[in-house]
Amino acid sequence: MNEDERAIRDLVRNWMESTKAGDIAAVLELMTDDILFLVPGAEPFGKQEFAAGAAGMKEMRFEGSCEVVEIEILGDRAWIRNRIEVTMTPAGGTPVHRAGYTLGILRKEGGRWRLARDANLVTAR
Amino acid sequence: MNEDERAIRDLVRNWMESTKAGDIAAVLELMTDDILFLVPGAEPFGKQEFAAGAAGMKEMRFEGSCEVVEIEILGDRAWIRNRIEVTMTPAGGTPVHRAGYTLGILRKEGGRWRLARDANLVTAR
Repeated sequence: MNEDERAIRDLVRNWMESTKAGDIAAVLELMTDDILFLVPGAEPFGKQEFAAGAAGMKEMRFEGSCEVVEIEILGDRAWIRNRIEVTMTPAGGTPVHRAGYTLGILRKEGGRWRLARDANLVTAR
Repeated sequence: MNEDERAIRDLVRNWMESTKAGDIAAVLELMTDDILFLVPGAEPFGKQEFAAGAAGMKEMRFEGSCEVVEIEILGDRAWIRNRIEVTMTPAGGTPVHRAGYTLGILRKEGGRWRLARDANLVTAR
């Protein structure tokens, strides 16, 4: 495993850990300013909408895992496929289990890898 | 627009035209043998399952468009984001309208571009 692959795997781990910890600012550091999130049934959305959505889930408890299934590094770009399992529990509410895959495009900017595109196919199961 | 970009745009057009024409063999030529299709709510599937699914939709009429929204070429790899609108009409049935985006990874093999990964976020709207 080379340095780039290690850095990208760290990013994935960091994203999940920061999400669990409710540290939105740390998650926002892991994406490019022009990131686009693609989800089923809606138009793509960017960093600001992600931040607003995360702020609205502050009381939600996250548990789960994110496994890197495939990774290919192409100079200062990379693509990655992850398998995510997550249980989200609203304060005083019923846990929702979601599972599925993401396909992401990463970009290396100033020596740091960041997520630039994220197709999210994680659904309630 | 360079030669690679033109070839990838041709592939996208060809995929849609061959789908409309019901020419499954032509569509299969546009993907790598190890392609993976990612869709919401299911495990990723490959070329053989795509072919079986398409064979089961032989009586279905396809209309629609596929617009390349973003494309980035990285040597013999590329990623692409498309917006798809499609109306599928079963024989004697009610048309279903679907719209959304795909995020794809392409690979150049023996001088020919082929789709290698396809995250499909096209849903009934």
